[in-house]
Amino acid sequence: STKTEIEHVLQFTPAVYGYFGRVKPEVVKLMFCCVSGCLTDGRIYLSASGEEMVSVNTKDTMGIRMLQREDVEVVLLTSSEDPVAKTASDNLKKRMGCEVVLVGQEPLSDLKSMVKQRNLEWKDVAYMGNDKADINCLNQAGLSAIPGDAPVVAINAAKYTCHSVGGKGAVREFAEHILLQKEKARSQMEQDRIDRSSS
Amino acid sequence: STKTEIEHVLQFTPAVYGYFGRVKPEVVKLMFCCVSGCLTDGRIYLSASGEEMVSVNTKDTMGIRMLQREDVEVVLLTSSEDPVAKTASDNLKKRMGCEVVLVGQEPLSDLKSMVKQRNLEWKDVAYMGNDKADINCLNQAGLSAIPGDAPVVAINAAKYTCHSVGGKGAVREFAEHILLQKEKARSQMEQDRIDRSSS
Amino acid sequence: STKTEIEHVLQFTPAVYGYFGRVKPEVVKLMFCCVSGCLTDGRIYLSASGEEMVSVNTKDTMGIRMLQREDVEVVLLTSSEDPVAKTASDNLKKRMGCEVVLVGQEPLSDLKSMVKQRNLEWKDVAYMGNDKADINCLNQAGLSAIPGDAPVVAINAAKYTCHSVGGKGAVREFAEHILLQKEKARSQMEQDRIDRSSS
Amino acid sequence: STKTEIEHVLQFTPAVYGYFGRVKPEVVKLMFCCVSGCLTDGRIYLSASGEEMVSVNTKDTMGIRMLQREDVEVVLLTSSEDPVAKTASDNLKKRMGCEVVLVGQEPLSDLKSMVKQRNLEWKDVAYMGNDKADINCLNQAGLSAIPGDAPVVAINAAKYTCHSVGGKGAVREFAEHILLQKEKARSQMEQDRIDRSSS
Repeated sequence: STKTEIEHVLQFTPAVYGYFGRVKPEVVKLMFCCVSGCLTDGRIYLSASGEEMVSVNTKDTMGIRMLQREDVEVVLLTSSEDPVAKTASDNLKKRMGCEVVLVGQEPLSDLKSMVKQRNLEWKDVAYMGNDKADINCLNQAGLSAIPGDAPVVAINAAKYTCHSVGGKGAVREFAEHILLQKEKARSQMEQDRIDRSSS
Repeated sequence: STKTEIEHVLQFTPAVYGYFGRVKPEVVKLMFCCVSGCLTDGRIYLSASGEEMVSVNTKDTMGIRMLQREDVEVVLLTSSEDPVAKTASDNLKKRMGCEVVLVGQEPLSDLKSMVKQRNLEWKDVAYMGNDKADINCLNQAGLSAIPGDAPVVAINAAKYTCHSVGGKGAVREFAEHILLQKEKARSQMEQDRIDRSSS
Repeated sequence: STKTEIEHVLQFTPAVYGYFGRVKPEVVKLMFCCVSGCLTDGRIYLSASGEEMVSVNTKDTMGIRMLQREDVEVVLLTSSEDPVAKTASDNLKKRMGCEVVLVGQEPLSDLKSMVKQRNLEWKDVAYMGNDKADINCLNQAGLSAIPGDAPVVAINAAKYTCHSVGGKGAVREFAEHILLQKEKARSQMEQDRIDRSSS
Repeated sequence: STKTEIEHVLQFTPAVYGYFGRVKPEVVKLMFCCVSGCLTDGRIYLSASGEEMVSVNTKDTMGIRMLQREDVEVVLLTSSEDPVAKTASDNLKKRMGCEVVLVGQEPLSDLKSMVKQRNLEWKDVAYMGNDKADINCLNQAGLSAIPGDAPVVAINAAKYTCHSVGGKGAVREFAEHILLQKEKARSQMEQDRIDRSSS
């Protein structure tokens, strides 16, 4: 299959690999996605009885499934400053088949070990966040995005600003962006392989 | 009544029938409508206790009733990838008096038997969907529509793009579109009958 | 007080009363307001457990209180085709101190007796609705309005189309419109009284 | 630290203090923020079982945390005319670490003692409200704001109109505005200190 060919090329052709060193960030294997404000619209519903709720959009959960089908692992992030999303995280974990990780005020240091554990570098990672705390991760990640309604402070750090807002398609839009980059990289690599074998 | 006349014309006038062969898709008898993202806004509310909710709009449920009063059967579709709408489906079934059918990744094959069972063809069917999985059904159905906020991938397949978004009037808008086509076809058929009898 | 003067004028000056016969619709004493799509945004939240919810906006409930303080009785309408609003009606009744009335497919006939019972005519009534069923009431009422997102079919029947949408300030906007008309009528009547006494 | 220097300057340099008398409103120590329509979008969710809910946005709760970290005390206000927000107030109190105060039809008189108790004047206070009842407080407070979707009646009284609407970032926007003013005042004070010591 094409996939095996690609892997073959990557493993045995240092020149091509070096070439891929440049575009490799666009072939992400791992995506971190904040729950509050990215997968949700940021709202937490509070009831008198203490029950709390958040909402997710099927457009976005479908985006996550599209990534998973293309072998991109998706990890959801909840914040210690945002306890309500944590309560719904078991539900999300089950629905999406995603790991849900609790991060603190600097997610970069919390996630470092996860990236390393998977033998990846930050440029192999896609990151979607939406606030101040995400700035370092947005800067480090090979591909990074924020929803269209993110606070100004986060906008400059992200490589891609979604037209869609949080909880209304932003995750889906970024997922399609990632898959498009992946597709482009694949075609280019294939083209490169053809060019080399015909020369 | 006019209706009986129409049926009479359809049954006994091959020429007129052939004429209707062309516009028949606009006289739909059956409408399939996805719950997630069409009848709802796509949001699933998740609570800490595991309770899940979706919302529907009375504007849209009224649209479904308008179709039912004009003898268009409405069948609601939930997806195996979207289990929450399934949980609310009993409620919808009772409220709307609609059959609720669970479809998989290719609704076309799941719904084939239902269309056949009613002695209909796909051009007698109206279909409202909002994502990739709906593309074949949107293409096959005589009338088809997507909400204004559907992902780009689905837009090209639909014959009609609603101005309204999912869960906020898109189903109502499509219902009125269907009834308008039906009305037009009826007038045209009536005119045709007059022209023929006066010639 | 000014109010007593106005009442005095109305009771004992037939000419002025006749004059008010013309503008009287603008001094409404009774307002009918549909719950679904006017006081709410039309959404009904359905849970797996069968629990149902609707939402109202404090902007709008404040509008109702403003009318009540100016001695306009507000009666909320739920529809037999919209059972969920009925379930929340006890809550609304208690919150707003409003009577909540269940109407059928032609609210005009259901409400006739209420108008008569209060010794009022339809031109003394304000009506806010948002769909086909409300057309006759919107036509009959002295002042009538629809939310900005009402279906096209209802727009032509209403005397006033709100800039705000249902559940997001439409009731408040109409309340302010009613109070402004009331204020204008009061000033004009006062002016008329001055003109007459100085002539 | 800079902070200690500032305090030193404020305490021992009457001229500079007098200078700050002018800009002091911009160095607020206390912020009052209405829950309904500012921290929430104004919606109250009513269920058949009598359960009530409101929603808050993590963007806004983060704004409150940003103020608290810069030593601005935030006090949330619920209204006696808006009982539902009261029911969720314990939850908010715990989440945000804010005092939640119930105010009546004239918040100014209810809050007078709180301002005095903290040895502050109204010009040291920031106030965010969204309706008629808030007009006097909006006028008195050194910094005051309303969400972009506030009723017209409140707009003229506020010193700052947010681009964001209630429950969707208005509190966050005002928090950033307050912190920016604080930062500006700090720089200006520092500059003033430098100018004085170099002259």
